[in-house]
Order: sequence, then C-alpha cells, then structure tokens
Amino acid sequence: MDANHLTITPRCPIRTTLELVGGKWRLLVLHQLHPVPCRFSALKSRLPDISEKVLVQELRQLAQAGLVVRRAYGEVPPRVEYALTPLGEQALPLIGAIASFGQHYLSALLMETEAAPAAS
Amino acid sequence: MDANHLTITPRCPIRTTLELVGGKWRLLVLHQLHPVPCRFSALKSRLPDISEKVLVQELRQLAQAGLVVRRAYGEVPPRVEYALTPLGEQALPLIGAIASFGQHYLSALLMETEAAPAAS
Repeated sequence: MDANHLTITPRCPIRTTLELVGGKWRLLVLHQLHPVPCRFSALKSRLPDISEKVLVQELRQLAQAGLVVRRAYGEVPPRVEYALTPLGEQALPLIGAIASFGQHYLSALLMETEAAPAAS
Repeated sequence: MDANHLTITPRCPIRTTLELVGGKWRLLVLHQLHPVPCRFSALKSRLPDISEKVLVQELRQLAQAGLVVRRAYGEVPPRVEYALTPLGEQALPLIGAIASFGQHYLSALLMETEAAPAAS
C-alpha cells in the first residue's frame, strides 16, 4: 500500500466552507443573528419556510461548528438566545459576497428576459 | 384565501446563489475553469473524487444556469472544452471569499487544537 494513503491531506478551504455553511439554511440563519442575538421563536418567524425540526438541527450543527452559541438565561420564564460567535461573525463578509453574486445573477436574468423577444 | 399567497415574492439573492453553486462540487468545478477553459478529462483528473457521472451532471446544470459554456470544436479527434461565461466569471470573487473563510476557520481550529491540553 502506498504510504501516501495514510497521510492526512490538508483540508481544502473551499470544501470546508461548503460543508459548514453550504446547505440551504445555514447562511440564512447566520444572517438573521446579525447584528443582535435572537430567540428561537423570532428566528422561526423570520424564516417562515423552515420547519421547527430543521431549524433546531441547523442551530445545533452551527453550534457544534463553533459558529453560533446558545445562551440560556436563568430567568422566569426561561429565555434562550442564539448569537454569532467571533468565528461566526467572520462569515458575514461571505454572506455579503454571496448576496452580491445572487443579486448580480438575478439582474442578468431579468435583463435577458426583457431583451428576449416573446416568441423565442 | 389570502391574496398574498398568490403574489410572486422577489427572489432572495442568498438563496439564489446557494441554489446555483451551493452544492458540494459546483464552485470547485467553476474554480478549475479559471483562468483557462478545460477539457472534460483534465477537469476529471483535477477533481479525482468526483465520479464521471456526477461531473457530467454538474457541468450540464452549470451550463443551464448560464455559468459555463460547452464548446465543441470540429476537429479530428473531436475536442470539447468547458469555459466560464462572463456570468460564471462573476462567481470568482465569491470563490475567493469562500476560500478565505475556510482558511480562517481551519486556522482557528488548528489554534484551538494546539491550545487545548491533550487530556481535555
């Protein structure tokens, strides 16, 4: 067996990011936690088309990845908030770049639709 | 029924980008097509852990989205190349931002691993 099969290859930064936040919801969740922390119910109402079950899973995975922190306050009634960690805040420029590309793409699509003759 | 259910909501730019290039391979494929176009076999050898079938699918979907163009040259033997479209080139800064976040994340992870006592 080739010894190279046993060495740990350096992680690809692009793939790392896609695994962390490449899913359908993760960046949208992170985006909602900026600039202020947010309770579960508020998060759910800002992202109406995510199910509660999936939102719970996404928050848990973002917390495991160190991008989000869950803060439980010892109050009555109990209050739990989700906040970005400093590492999670590093994802904000990424969200900006992603939104900017999406905006550019949608504009290009619109221009193409308007320029094309209806029959084509 | 509420009339709002019938209106078309404006597309979210973040979701648009994630749908276009949020999968496991798309950005890696686009990245390989810069700065010069690439033949299928060269693309496959640069991305050894993608199957041929999946690479074909990804290229087809990137072409449908207008980000990649397939160019067939009337040569013997036949030559087919894949290239970024101008719209596909707009994704390059996005790849930079994604790679930069991944690099930052991996460095933070490494620092944490080195800082943590072995027994914890």
